[in-house]
Amino acid sequence: MAYNKPFSAAEYSTRLADVKRRMQVAGLDLLICQDPANMGWLTGFDGWSFYTPQYVVVQVSEDWPIWFGRAQDAKSAHFTTDLPTQNIIGYSEPLVQHPVSHPVDELCDLIRLKGWHKSRIGVELDAHYYTARAHQHLVTGLPDATIEDCKELVNWARLIKSPAEVELMREAGRICTETMNRALRKISPGVPQFEVIAEVYRAQITGLDGKFGDYTSLCPLIQVGEGTSTPHLTWTDEPLPRDALVVMEIGAARRHYHAPLTRTMHLGRPPAEIDKLAKVIVEGVDVALAKARPGVTCEEVEAVWQKVLNANGYTKPSRVGYSIGLNYPPDWGERTASLRPGDRTVLEPGMCFHFQSGVWLEDFGAAVSEPFVVTENGGERLCDAPRELIVID
Amino acid sequence: MAYNKPFSAAEYSTRLADVKRRMQVAGLDLLICQDPANMGWLTGFDGWSFYTPQYVVVQVSEDWPIWFGRAQDAKSAHFTTDLPTQNIIGYSEPLVQHPVSHPVDELCDLIRLKGWHKSRIGVELDAHYYTARAHQHLVTGLPDATIEDCKELVNWARLIKSPAEVELMREAGRICTETMNRALRKISPGVPQFEVIAEVYRAQITGLDGKFGDYTSLCPLIQVGEGTSTPHLTWTDEPLPRDALVVMEIGAARRHYHAPLTRTMHLGRPPAEIDKLAKVIVEGVDVALAKARPGVTCEEVEAVWQKVLNANGYTKPSRVGYSIGLNYPPDWGERTASLRPGDRTVLEPGMCFHFQSGVWLEDFGAAVSEPFVVTENGGERLCDAPRELIVID
Repeated sequence: MAYNKPFSAAEYSTRLADVKRRMQVAGLDLLICQDPANMGWLTGFDGWSFYTPQYVVVQVSEDWPIWFGRAQDAKSAHFTTDLPTQNIIGYSEPLVQHPVSHPVDELCDLIRLKGWHKSRIGVELDAHYYTARAHQHLVTGLPDATIEDCKELVNWARLIKSPAEVELMREAGRICTETMNRALRKISPGVPQFEVIAEVYRAQITGLDGKFGDYTSLCPLIQVGEGTSTPHLTWTDEPLPRDALVVMEIGAARRHYHAPLTRTMHLGRPPAEIDKLAKVIVEGVDVALAKARPGVTCEEVEAVWQKVLNANGYTKPSRVGYSIGLNYPPDWGERTASLRPGDRTVLEPGMCFHFQSGVWLEDFGAAVSEPFVVTENGGERLCDAPRELIVID
Repeated sequence: MAYNKPFSAAEYSTRLADVKRRMQVAGLDLLICQDPANMGWLTGFDGWSFYTPQYVVVQVSEDWPIWFGRAQDAKSAHFTTDLPTQNIIGYSEPLVQHPVSHPVDELCDLIRLKGWHKSRIGVELDAHYYTARAHQHLVTGLPDATIEDCKELVNWARLIKSPAEVELMREAGRICTETMNRALRKISPGVPQFEVIAEVYRAQITGLDGKFGDYTSLCPLIQVGEGTSTPHLTWTDEPLPRDALVVMEIGAARRHYHAPLTRTMHLGRPPAEIDKLAKVIVEGVDVALAKARPGVTCEEVEAVWQKVLNANGYTKPSRVGYSIGLNYPPDWGERTASLRPGDRTVLEPGMCFHFQSGVWLEDFGAAVSEPFVVTENGGERLCDAPRELIVID
C-alpha cells in the first residue's frame, strides 16, 4: 500500500541534494529535523504524530534520510515515504512521556551505532516541537559530538518553491477564495459566530473540483467589534451584531501547502474612520505587491507599504508579511524571510509570502491580506476574493 | 469588553493557590509556563497566539500571575483574563523570529526588574512549544538564577477536574457523540474520505443545543484498509471502498475541554478475525472501565485490559490511555498520568482519561476508545456512540 505522494521521487532527490549542499557549506555532518514541515518536505512523511518526539535525520554522505519516531507511527512512514525499510526506525513505547528517559536516548544509541557520534550535528534549536528537554538528552547522550543550531537550514531551502509546489499553492489559493466567499455569504446580523466558522471548516476540507483541503496550521480566526484590535481571538457563541466591524483570517491548505487570507467586513454602514483605514490598507497592499519583483529585498517591500500608511497618518509596528508554503500547526509561516525592516532577503521567482496587512489600533483594527507568489511582474495574488471594506447591510 | 469566561473568578483563584502550594513543595520561587493549556487554566487566556513565544509567569508570593507575550496579542489577554493591566506585558515586535535576539531576552529583563533574578525558577522543559533556543536564552539571561524542570507541575494540578470542568467535559462528550453519529451516517462506499471529514469538522464546531465546539487539539484521523495498521494518518481524496475496514478517531472540544472517541467500521461483511478483534477490544474496555474506581492505580486498570487481550491471543504494547481535559494543539493528552505498566497514579473522582484501546497489528488494526470520568462507580463514559464493530453494508 502506498499513499499518493504530492511530488515525484526526482523532486524529493533534488531537495535532499540541496539540503546536503547547505550542510556542507555549514560544515554539518548530520542534521536532525524536528519541524514537521521539514520532515514532510524532505521525505513526504505525513500524519498527525508530531505531538510525540519524531525526527528525520540526514547524514551528509548517506543516500537516504532516516525517519525516527514512535513505533506505532513507523507504518505511516512506510505508507507516505519512499524511504527504504531499514531507514524507518521506531522507538520503544515506554519512552513516550517518560519522567526520566526520553526518545532521544534511543536516537543517541542509533547515532552511536552508526558511528556518527563524533559528528558535527545541526539541530533545529527553535523549531516549535524541539523541546529544551529533548535537547538536553541529546547533548548528554552524545558527549563527543559538536551540536549546534542549524538556523532553520531546511526552512531556508524551502523558500523558493518549485513549479509543482507553486501549483499546490495556487490550488490552496483557489480553495481559500471559495472558503472566504462562503463565509461572506454566511455573515449576517444575528448569526452566531460559530456558524460562520463551521461553514469555513466545511469549505476548507471540501476543497474545489474534487481536490480536497487539508487541516490548516492555524484555526480560522474571527474578531468582532473591539475584538478587532487584536489578531488571534477565536469564535464564540455570540450572534453577530447589527452594526459592527468584523475581521476574519482564514487559510486553506492543499497537501499542506497554505494560502492564508484576511478580510474586513462591516455589518451596517461603516464609520468614516474604518472606511478610510481599509482603503489605505488596500492601497498599501497594491503598492507593495507591484514592488515585489525579483531582485527587490524584503525590507524594500515593507518600506513602500509603510510609506503609504505613514502618508495617511497610520503606522504598523509588526512585520507586514512572512514566507509561506508547506506547513503544519501551529504556524503557517516558514520562520525565514519576513517583510520587515532589516530583512535583506532578495526576492526570487517562486518565493511565496503572506502579505499580512493588519493594522491594530487601540479600539479597532482592519486587515486585507493577500498570499502571493513572486513573479517577474511582481507579487501575483493566489486568492481572488472581494477586497476593500466589505459592507454587509 | 470582556469575553465570557468559562469559569468563575473564584475557580481561577483556587487554581492559582493550588499551583503556589505545589511550587512551595517543589521549592520554586518562580514558575514560567509555556504550555497553552497551563496558561489558559491559570488565567483564562485564550487565542491562537502560541506559535510565537508566550508565557504565564507565577511568582509564589504575588497576588497575580504575569502574562508575557507578543505586543499585538496583549489585547487578547485583556479580553480573556482578569489580570490587572500592569500584569499584561507585550514584548517588542522585532524579537519575533529574530536570528540573534529572542523574546526571552526581554522576559529576563522583566525578571531582573522585579528583583526575581536570583530565584529558583521552574520551567516546562518538555512542553511542546518550550524550545531549546528559548531555554538557552533564559539560562544565559539569568546567570544568578537556579533554573530547573518543573516536571509538569501545572499539568499535574489539572489532573482532578472541578465540577465545572467535568460539566464542560460532558458537553464535549455530547458534541463528540453527535459528531461521530453524523460521520457514521456519511460513511458509505464511494464517498471520498474528505467528505466525511468535512462533515466531522462542521459538526464539531456547530456543537449541540447552541453550545459551540472549539477547534480540537488533533485533527480528525481516518484510516482505511491496510492504513488501519497505524493510528495517525489523515484523509485523502480516495473514495471509500466497497469492502474495507475503516478506523476513525475524532474529538470534540467545549471551551477547549476535550472528549476524543475512536470507532471501527467495516464496509461490507467483516472477516471473522476483524470481528473477533473488535469484540475483544470492547470486552476489554468494559472490564477496564468497571475497574477504574477511586483508589485503583493507573497500571491496575491497564492490567485488567491487557489480561482480556492476552486471553484472546492479542497484546497491546503502547499505553492504553492518558489523562485528558483542557488542551490546545498538538495533543489532547495532559502529559501526566498514563494507563500503562509502572504508572502508580491513584485514581480519584473527577480525573478524566481517554481509554485508547487501539490494537495495531501488522496488516490491520481496530480501536473502540472511550473518554471517561472517574466516579465512585468506575469509569463513566462521556460519549454514547454505537460500539463494537459497526458494519455498514
